Amino acid sequence: MNAPEPTATLDQSIRLRGNTVQILDRRVFPEQLHWVDCANPAEVAAAIRDMVTQSSGPLYAAYAGMALAARQAADLPLDDARSRLVEAGELLANARPTNNHPKEAVRFVLDSLDGATTTAELVALAERACRLGDERYRARSRALAEAAVDLIPDGSRILTHCWMDSYLIELVKAAARAGRRYSWVATETRPYLQGARLTSHTLREMGEQVTLITDGMGAAALAAGRAERERQSNPGADGGDTRNPETDGARQPEPDGARQPETGIGRIDALVTAADRVSMDGHVVNKVGTLGLAVAAKAFGVPYYALVQSPDRGAPTGADIVIEQRDHSEVLEVLGRRTASVLVTDAWYPAFDATPPEFVTSVVTDRGAFDATALADYYRS
Amino acid sequence: MNAPEPTATLDQSIRLRGNTVQILDRRVFPEQLHWVDCANPAEVAAAIRDMVTQSSGPLYAAYAGMALAARQAADLPLDDARSRLVEAGELLANARPTNNHPKEAVRFVLDSLDGATTTAELVALAERACRLGDERYRARSRALAEAAVDLIPDGSRILTHCWMDSYLIELVKAAARAGRRYSWVATETRPYLQGARLTSHTLREMGEQVTLITDGMGAAALAAGRAERERQSNPGADGGDTRNPETDGARQPEPDGARQPETGIGRIDALVTAADRVSMDGHVVNKVGTLGLAVAAKAFGVPYYALVQSPDRGAPTGADIVIEQRDHSEVLEVLGRRTASVLVTDAWYPAFDATPPEFVTSVVTDRGAFDATALADYYRS
Repeated sequence: MNAPEPTATLDQSIRLRGNTVQILDRRVFPEQLHWVDCANPAEVAAAIRDMVTQSSGPLYAAYAGMALAARQAADLPLDDARSRLVEAGELLANARPTNNHPKEAVRFVLDSLDGATTTAELVALAERACRLGDERYRARSRALAEAAVDLIPDGSRILTHCWMDSYLIELVKAAARAGRRYSWVATETRPYLQGARLTSHTLREMGEQVTLITDGMGAAALAAGRAERERQSNPGADGGDTRNPETDGARQPEPDGARQPETGIGRIDALVTAADRVSMDGHVVNKVGTLGLAVAAKAFGVPYYALVQSPDRGAPTGADIVIEQRDHSEVLEVLGRRTASVLVTDAWYPAFDATPPEFVTSVVTDRGAFDATALADYYRS
Repeated sequence: MNAPEPTATLDQSIRLRGNTVQILDRRVFPEQLHWVDCANPAEVAAAIRDMVTQSSGPLYAAYAGMALAARQAADLPLDDARSRLVEAGELLANARPTNNHPKEAVRFVLDSLDGATTTAELVALAERACRLGDERYRARSRALAEAAVDLIPDGSRILTHCWMDSYLIELVKAAARAGRRYSWVATETRPYLQGARLTSHTLREMGEQVTLITDGMGAAALAAGRAERERQSNPGADGGDTRNPETDGARQPEPDGARQPETGIGRIDALVTAADRVSMDGHVVNKVGTLGLAVAAKAFGVPYYALVQSPDRGAPTGADIVIEQRDHSEVLEVLGRRTASVLVTDAWYPAFDATPPEFVTSVVTDRGAFDATALADYYRS
């Protein structure tokens, strides 16, 4: 219980230093430890748009960008300083269309400025709100992680997709506090390779065991678990439903694993991903690829837990969430190197997909786990 | 009807020239047009094992390797020549464990040698069998492709995974003969990128329209089609089941597509893949990733057609097919460049997965389409 808490480089990847916001460049991390210096809120917004940072990063960057805007407005008259903060908020809130975090951060800061009668007060209120907002986001991630650990028994093997950022880091920390230990299977998450780079790296930094797979292997991993569960619940048979009882009746059982080498991945006990947004009718919008994993998890009897601090009252239905379409050249290449035939010019790159509630076991929030079809309860609790 | 037949480089990618089998190197094609020279059957087997060629390639390579063995045995006594062919067959048949094509090719050649009374006769019989076997495989692929075209209407948009090789080339040719035109969505197919390199390139060479996606985008593409089908069958509503009738009742319908930008991929009409092997109980073994696409296709109402010349009487059940586990370092890198964090050491690379019959609409063979649960009918027809 007194072991030092595990730490991760990406837990503190946005820094406000003097008149500069420094953003750890996730496009090259962990291969390189490179920080992008942003001299003003517009450069912070550009860094968000260019995916220098992503996932929870834009939220932290929005707070840092607003704090920077406040500092840079310190010598202006009060009304001009306020306008400068509003302008910075516009830029930061709209850098990317699907994730709402920067919008919420900007609103939180701007809503805290009422009552300032001098520029100095305004700046102090803004800086305080940025600090509080950042801390609040971390505290809510911690609460959400503790709720998730309650659902996931000790020893579980978790399949995850993309990069859950603060949720992942807090999940590992919360499990350690609860005396639970998980092992992980991570998809590489093309085209941006968040899984191969950010998730796997962070899990290893935190002392976790992780097995990397390509995005197409998720269903096979989930199905291998089903075969293994069926063997365990019926140890006299081997191979479960993949065998034909008519032709197999006369065979001797074989050693576990001999006929199912694909179970080498181990039994997957849960699919766990973050969600960029969850609509009130239970559509989970997350990195493209989540939908396929969720559909396969349901088909093969594995629970899917989607982690989000709170469902989005601004999105009554899945159709209210705009799916960002990114530059499709990223699909034609890997880390800047062309991988597709030069004859291919057409590609598709939706940054996210929407998983309907029928494929979601629970939406896990900072107020506990909710059924995806009963998210209104979150705001009643 | 008299337009020239479309052609593809990969249609003739194994050549026997004198005492050398030349194999087009699919590890670097289409970026480079590089042929690997094999001076004997052992080198052909090594090329198959090292994936210089794959898919239908090992079958053509096995015939070419056996023909080379015959030529190189021409000066030996009859019994030694026969032994030399058997040895070559051993090497070629066992280069990779999952795909049965080389085994079948070797058996076909060795079975044709009975009755040879001189080495010259033996060599002639072997070379003739190699030629016949190669031609027979192409003819059966043509028949299978024609059966598939019968199932797929003109104008269909086809999602495919990995590289169907001769089946793909014959499918495009058969569609052209039938006056049908398809468009294509291809997964890139990590780790080997067959989709990004071989499938997309070949389709473009043959004049087809193809959109490339990453492996994780297949379910989103299939789901987008469902939304579009629902809009078409119920044009008064928009967004289909992703909307909540209680909260949406008062809204005006919006222009088609305005709220569902993810449908930019277009409606997918069919999932079509080859199969490396299909067990008699209807398990489709194909490139890892097929299972996830098949499960999503079923969930979103898209038919899945698995193409194989014939189901495998040597595999009564799915559990009888060994899934090849390949070197997992290929998952940690792309085209030889490390993509995963250097802290990651564990990965999983099953080359194939097995799709249970419940997720397969039809198995399309050279004798037509069969229900995956009624494959014994193939051998009765």
